[in-house]
Amino acid sequence: MFPRNVLYGMFFVPADPINGSWVTIYEHIKFLEVKMTRINDSYLKLKAGYLFPEIGRRVKSFADANPAAKIIRLGIGDVTEPLAPKVVEAFHKGIDDLAQAKTFHGYGPEQGYEWLAATIVDKAYNPLGVELKSNEIFISDGSKCDSSNILDIFDISNKVAICDPVYPVYNDTNVMVGRTGEADAKGYYDGIVYMPCTEENNFSPAFPQEKVDLIYLCSPNNPTGTAAGKDQLQAWVDFALQNKAIILFDAAYEAFISEPGIPHSIYEIAGARKCAIEFRSFSKTAGFTGVRCGLTVIPEELTALSNKGEEIALNRLWNRRQSTKFNGVSYPVQRAAAAVYSDEGWAQVQTTIAYYMENARLIREGLEHAGFSCFGGVNAPYIWLKTPGNIGSWDFFDKLLKECHVVGTPGSGFGPSGEGYFRLSAFGSADNVREAIRRITEKWSF
Amino acid sequence: MFPRNVLYGMFFVPADPINGSWVTIYEHIKFLEVKMTRINDSYLKLKAGYLFPEIGRRVKSFADANPAAKIIRLGIGDVTEPLAPKVVEAFHKGIDDLAQAKTFHGYGPEQGYEWLAATIVDKAYNPLGVELKSNEIFISDGSKCDSSNILDIFDISNKVAICDPVYPVYNDTNVMVGRTGEADAKGYYDGIVYMPCTEENNFSPAFPQEKVDLIYLCSPNNPTGTAAGKDQLQAWVDFALQNKAIILFDAAYEAFISEPGIPHSIYEIAGARKCAIEFRSFSKTAGFTGVRCGLTVIPEELTALSNKGEEIALNRLWNRRQSTKFNGVSYPVQRAAAAVYSDEGWAQVQTTIAYYMENARLIREGLEHAGFSCFGGVNAPYIWLKTPGNIGSWDFFDKLLKECHVVGTPGSGFGPSGEGYFRLSAFGSADNVREAIRRITEKWSF
Repeated sequence: MFPRNVLYGMFFVPADPINGSWVTIYEHIKFLEVKMTRINDSYLKLKAGYLFPEIGRRVKSFADANPAAKIIRLGIGDVTEPLAPKVVEAFHKGIDDLAQAKTFHGYGPEQGYEWLAATIVDKAYNPLGVELKSNEIFISDGSKCDSSNILDIFDISNKVAICDPVYPVYNDTNVMVGRTGEADAKGYYDGIVYMPCTEENNFSPAFPQEKVDLIYLCSPNNPTGTAAGKDQLQAWVDFALQNKAIILFDAAYEAFISEPGIPHSIYEIAGARKCAIEFRSFSKTAGFTGVRCGLTVIPEELTALSNKGEEIALNRLWNRRQSTKFNGVSYPVQRAAAAVYSDEGWAQVQTTIAYYMENARLIREGLEHAGFSCFGGVNAPYIWLKTPGNIGSWDFFDKLLKECHVVGTPGSGFGPSGEGYFRLSAFGSADNVREAIRRITEKWSF
Repeated sequence: MFPRNVLYGMFFVPADPINGSWVTIYEHIKFLEVKMTRINDSYLKLKAGYLFPEIGRRVKSFADANPAAKIIRLGIGDVTEPLAPKVVEAFHKGIDDLAQAKTFHGYGPEQGYEWLAATIVDKAYNPLGVELKSNEIFISDGSKCDSSNILDIFDISNKVAICDPVYPVYNDTNVMVGRTGEADAKGYYDGIVYMPCTEENNFSPAFPQEKVDLIYLCSPNNPTGTAAGKDQLQAWVDFALQNKAIILFDAAYEAFISEPGIPHSIYEIAGARKCAIEFRSFSKTAGFTGVRCGLTVIPEELTALSNKGEEIALNRLWNRRQSTKFNGVSYPVQRAAAAVYSDEGWAQVQTTIAYYMENARLIREGLEHAGFSCFGGVNAPYIWLKTPGNIGSWDFFDKLLKECHVVGTPGSGFGPSGEGYFRLSAFGSADNVREAIRRITEKWSF
């Protein structure tokens, strides 16, 4: 109302304590009174350097200094092969629908089109012996969003358990909603229960020793490339039911499973409908990292407790969350996603997956032959290796970049228990993968 | 560990208090001890019946009972005209890029591609005299998501002010994050400062009488169709600066402004870079309701306070939020959005907007001629009318449906101060609009 630094009325105080200028009492009182909008302070607990930007920085610095080096990138888990022709065709057709008034589609259902949900139930779940209703499927723009946003429907008091190493999003989103204290020197946040996954426990974490409410599991696993068997998942479901916990099951890599007996869905496990939410993605399955489509499954029976002690259906809560905060997935994208399940589309997608998995075999066998200890790469497009001579993950990263011109991901970037490990991704061209392994094994053979 | 209802050990208690079966002490203790995962109880404060589903229910019920009735829908604010040819072309081209390894795009930047942000700065902001950097633009899948998710970066203690009537998402998302108490009989939630917008104040709300931290403003306005002038917005910016509040400015309908002197962006106002976040959308501008693209602008200077009293840049916080919880917008969609700003694309989009605004004129002038009090429809595709004889909004809805077979939106659905008002949308075919106005004015003329 009254501009600062303009004397007003007859009341003076000596000086503005901050700016050192003369101000009126009125101004002074206003100054002391008016509080600024507050940020969510939990964000400041996050570490500044996120993994992939730091990798990008180091690679750029090396590339700038060595412009002749032919760098091969097996770092970030991003697909490289083009979309399947059947998917491309349906995607184009979806756009043509929007190009004419008669077939135009405006706002779609926030939950996704029923025809896509029904196709997913029919083609992706029923063949596993899993029955789902289409209203238990929520189509989204990706499982990164879903596995983050799912926290919206749970109370802040819930205790969370996550694996270590782990996809960083699980950890960071819990920090951001205020569920944790500060991180310790190792990088563990106070309030989260970490479950180490190392060679010693065969990358299969022990059950938490304290009561937890939300348990993140990812199988096939990013970053270790290992996959849980039916018995292991049954044990987790039994544990969750007995402890009244909910499993947040990330199945983003299920399409890469090659061995029989490895469940593709948590709902293949007896009792899972009462204790598990599943996330799936078209990103890796069908090369949709730049297209954006995923889905979340919440069975109707799955409940959690209200303050009044009532059991509330989580399907209903998530439906309300999505209806209010989300506006559905792009119509042509949903058309493209449905085409993944056509006979031709499916065959084309499988060909690409086989291509990546042949890369995984080349990496795994090539490195093992040279004496590396390798894990994963059979049911997932990631190979998790022990660094030679137990050197630090980032030291190995730098060596590999400088001496072999190959980019990977330091295991410690996924959590403290990833120290001494390193992730190589099978995404990329077979020629590049062969060349990368040639360079690595020429340098390191034991 | 021990199945319920199997006796274990030698300790018995008479009966399980819930199931009435015999249980061991061990089981009994377990039963009492293990607490279930808790829901976010704030969701239960939301009213069950969201506006548009209720409209859908009533329309369906009427249509089922009157299969011969030719219902005209001017209710939900969804576009009906096809995408512009230039947009369609670029969208197809984006897919073709993904169909070949050489031009394939996987994960894009979470903030959106720089070429799209730069185009928006150049074509949408610079012509207004507004300078922005491309890193101040965050591309998203729509402004419903953005105007909801923005709450993530603010502390729960901030006081929020919203208009009444209002786009329900602002209200409901604040309830969902736990910023409010219960709703009273009228529908006002405890803890939110409501700013009535009625004919009496020319739909221009008075400043809040108590300290607020976040102020939602929408101009041109949904649902009232009115738009704030430069002086009005300057007064809001001055108010926000003096009161250290932040304006959340929703400009989703800026493309429909036809009068000179009505700002298209809050950044046309001096001082706004220090107190305002702006949301924009391609949904109405370019018919993208089914395509999904929007954007949020956060100027680098905009700050809010940490617990330690530091001013933290909100651009940095939102960048971290988007990097961690979002995976960017579909690449072909971003290509399509950029084409909106090509010379031909822009001309085509303007033709469609002119078509809708001619509908708006038909509705406004037709109803005014018949004696209705109408607002809006000049700088926005919505006409906000007073119900004839001051009957209730829902009563008028039912009458209009039954007697004219026309669907609109009851004003009270947008908030208590919308009672006695009604919204008609200018989206639809000109023939339908003419026929609807014919039917309405045949029935009501004063």
